[in-house]
Amino acid sequence: MSSSDIFIGETIGTAILILLGGGVCAAVTLKASKARNAGWVAIIFGWAFAVLTAAYTTGPISGAHLNPAVTVGIAIKDGDWDNVPVYFAGQILGAMIGAVLVWITYYGQFQAHLTDREIVGGPGAQDTKSVEAQEAEAGPVLGIFSTGPEIRNAVQNLATEIIGTFVLVIAILTQGLNDSGKGLGPLGALITALVVAGIGLSLGGPTGYAINPVRDLGPRIVHALLPLPNKGGSDWGYAWVPVVGPLIGGAIAAGLYNVAFA
Amino acid sequence: MSSSDIFIGETIGTAILILLGGGVCAAVTLKASKARNAGWVAIIFGWAFAVLTAAYTTGPISGAHLNPAVTVGIAIKDGDWDNVPVYFAGQILGAMIGAVLVWITYYGQFQAHLTDREIVGGPGAQDTKSVEAQEAEAGPVLGIFSTGPEIRNAVQNLATEIIGTFVLVIAILTQGLNDSGKGLGPLGALITALVVAGIGLSLGGPTGYAINPVRDLGPRIVHALLPLPNKGGSDWGYAWVPVVGPLIGGAIAAGLYNVAFA
Amino acid sequence: MSSSDIFIGETIGTAILILLGGGVCAAVTLKASKARNAGWVAIIFGWAFAVLTAAYTTGPISGAHLNPAVTVGIAIKDGDWDNVPVYFAGQILGAMIGAVLVWITYYGQFQAHLTDREIVGGPGAQDTKSVEAQEAEAGPVLGIFSTGPEIRNAVQNLATEIIGTFVLVIAILTQGLNDSGKGLGPLGALITALVVAGIGLSLGGPTGYAINPVRDLGPRIVHALLPLPNKGGSDWGYAWVPVVGPLIGGAIAAGLYNVAFA
Amino acid sequence: MSSSDIFIGETIGTAILILLGGGVCAAVTLKASKARNAGWVAIIFGWAFAVLTAAYTTGPISGAHLNPAVTVGIAIKDGDWDNVPVYFAGQILGAMIGAVLVWITYYGQFQAHLTDREIVGGPGAQDTKSVEAQEAEAGPVLGIFSTGPEIRNAVQNLATEIIGTFVLVIAILTQGLNDSGKGLGPLGALITALVVAGIGLSLGGPTGYAINPVRDLGPRIVHALLPLPNKGGSDWGYAWVPVVGPLIGGAIAAGLYNVAFA
Repeated sequence: MSSSDIFIGETIGTAILILLGGGVCAAVTLKASKARNAGWVAIIFGWAFAVLTAAYTTGPISGAHLNPAVTVGIAIKDGDWDNVPVYFAGQILGAMIGAVLVWITYYGQFQAHLTDREIVGGPGAQDTKSVEAQEAEAGPVLGIFSTGPEIRNAVQNLATEIIGTFVLVIAILTQGLNDSGKGLGPLGALITALVVAGIGLSLGGPTGYAINPVRDLGPRIVHALLPLPNKGGSDWGYAWVPVVGPLIGGAIAAGLYNVAFA
Repeated sequence: MSSSDIFIGETIGTAILILLGGGVCAAVTLKASKARNAGWVAIIFGWAFAVLTAAYTTGPISGAHLNPAVTVGIAIKDGDWDNVPVYFAGQILGAMIGAVLVWITYYGQFQAHLTDREIVGGPGAQDTKSVEAQEAEAGPVLGIFSTGPEIRNAVQNLATEIIGTFVLVIAILTQGLNDSGKGLGPLGALITALVVAGIGLSLGGPTGYAINPVRDLGPRIVHALLPLPNKGGSDWGYAWVPVVGPLIGGAIAAGLYNVAFA
Repeated sequence: MSSSDIFIGETIGTAILILLGGGVCAAVTLKASKARNAGWVAIIFGWAFAVLTAAYTTGPISGAHLNPAVTVGIAIKDGDWDNVPVYFAGQILGAMIGAVLVWITYYGQFQAHLTDREIVGGPGAQDTKSVEAQEAEAGPVLGIFSTGPEIRNAVQNLATEIIGTFVLVIAILTQGLNDSGKGLGPLGALITALVVAGIGLSLGGPTGYAINPVRDLGPRIVHALLPLPNKGGSDWGYAWVPVVGPLIGGAIAAGLYNVAFA
Repeated sequence: MSSSDIFIGETIGTAILILLGGGVCAAVTLKASKARNAGWVAIIFGWAFAVLTAAYTTGPISGAHLNPAVTVGIAIKDGDWDNVPVYFAGQILGAMIGAVLVWITYYGQFQAHLTDREIVGGPGAQDTKSVEAQEAEAGPVLGIFSTGPEIRNAVQNLATEIIGTFVLVIAILTQGLNDSGKGLGPLGALITALVVAGIGLSLGGPTGYAINPVRDLGPRIVHALLPLPNKGGSDWGYAWVPVVGPLIGGAIAAGLYNVAFA
């Protein structure tokens, strides 16, 4: 693959990943969304199909890493770091583009959620609660962009992100064993998506399973920059955990792969 | 493929798509349906498996576009518009047939929902609410046929439909890269179905993800023609958005594909 | 395939189908089940994975029809009725075995549900309602064995079963086009399972989607024979609908296939 | 496969299986988890994707039995018991490692659930109930580690586990027929995962579908050893059922396979 293909593929793929991943969080969170309160299973499958769509679309172009932890894991496995900076650049740019697209897609919903509560309840709206009940529910929307812990404890939060990313990257590294080395095909994209669903269902409870540095950092930067009213803080104190944890988890997975499976 | 195969395949395929897609909306909406209030996740998977069933059944016949936005995207990608009118004709006819079949399948439920509320609660019925509570819930059934926005804003609604259809069509256009150019096979049909589920979960909140001009227009015409009692209006003021938005989104996807992936 | 393989495969396959399909209905219906009230989506996926498990296991042995409507559709398509009686015999025997296995698996739950309500609430039980509330909920368990309509109308009920089975059989008949004639493989089994999920979600609201004569008749016979206390009637007045409707639907699908796709 | 590959593959694979399988039980059970009360469908898919992730990752290394009942079934089918002790050793070690990893991942949640209820409700917490309501809900956490029956009846509980494991192992044994003898590939891993989901949905109501001796015994040992406050007993009186039942079920499946399918 050329550097240009890698950059273009990772940018488009990560943009799709975050558009759909952030999108499902907006869909279940914001007022005047048909999916409001659709629940945890909806979020899990929304992120899984985000992975599927992005990986299926850009797998033939760039290999569809879409995640610096995957890129680091593959680099350690292969002992080849040449393209790593290009992968990183496409991934962080794509993540930011995706977060902006979420804002455009849900523009009216963000406005209704954060400011003008009377607009809620137009034709077809499912939200029939009183304005007071709606106001009590309204809150910051950082969770649509970035992850946050239920119990704030850097050691445990880091451990959780390391373990979750380890599972993701060890599964991805065995793809060559499963697919005869032909690269990420459609079945590999589907299985990777369902592995992410499994990690979310099983290991997502404490921190919301970032398991991908740019998935968290890119949208957090966009949250800080967007002109959202009453948006609250961007919680920069936590921002290093979902960056450092996944990178460590990916590296451990690659190390184990080279020892045990290679 | 011959024109005849294309027309037959698209008519049957789009009829199956709308029969199952409209069917799940009827199933979760109407009184005296076992699936009543089964929720957003049921709707999402109902539409996804509608896509799967229709695409699997007619993929070998017509390629299973089932959607003018897909037909336009493929025509732009290939620079070949010869069969476009035949695709369009089969798609709009099939969509109307599918909507009529939904009405036949749920005939008694439509009647019970719209007029004779006492009939509800026969043997096995799950609906044990009082007649008054049921009446308060009853309403127009346009949502079983066509989409509508939660917040009515033509610019945002159009943007949402453009973005959703862009994701669908860019994924479909890469199928040739994923499947070695063999055309839509069973795995491609499955992945396309789950991509639609992803778009629905993530981008369906504001407008209900038409992402297909005939999916919205065909059933809307049928809604206007069917002798449903108390059916309410067909909301023709909104009807252009889910036609124009998807066509723009499909065209943008094909343009990007030709620039970035070809 | 030999007659012996067909009979053995269909018997084992249909037994697995009804064991898992009836099992999920028991799981969400009966007291002292961990899955009680898990909802419509659980039933849909329970039946879908029942189809998958049965078809995957016996596809290489008998082709995994598991359904007289499928057998009739394939016989019409191929113009070959030689093995039809053997298929039917295995299917009805398997369906009855499967229904007995459901009873064995949920023996204590049937007893608790139908008679001894005090036994409910043992260690780990999720059911913490009062005995009175539990009694009000308890009812006949025919729905675990056979289907029944929400609104009893023979014409509509028949139409719904015809339409649902038509969709199933037309999809199955195109399998040869999708899989290069190699017979039912694992991917075909998976897609057939998800097609059944789609039919259930979209067309199951009025009658509970029998779409298979033995799926309904076999367990209904077992319901009539089993020594269940307070079991209520077996509703033989409705029993012909889920037998006749699916056979008509399968025949129509095969006729259309031969006209449009062959 | 070498003994070393088998041991390493089964240890890593079963650790991933129990990490994700126990993880989803922790996620829906414990306080201060984002997935709390996500319900039965979340548990079903969590375990299914646990099977998928573990089988996909270690299928090419050890064949991914991950379950002594599968190992016994394959040994009976093939008449080859040479590697059985190595499989067993890796499986029980992996199951214990997986259970410890669940504890690490959810460390703060275990603490909050079992002792310090005031910590609940930190930034982003979904649990807004009163401390009293929370205390009433808190209870032993054995269900995160091991299975238990809703109605305690050794004969029925054993029968349920035998039937569930029979379905699993008969499906796995036909894999050679489905995949042309190439061993467990990605599609086989996916289908096995969904078969487990089907068994859970349909047959999991009475006992929680252990269907795997080490899945139950390994985490039960870890539960007995871990320094969890107020953890309650490990219910050793029931522990033999989910060991003996699955082994019998696997053996019956292999016997039937050799008689009917070979």
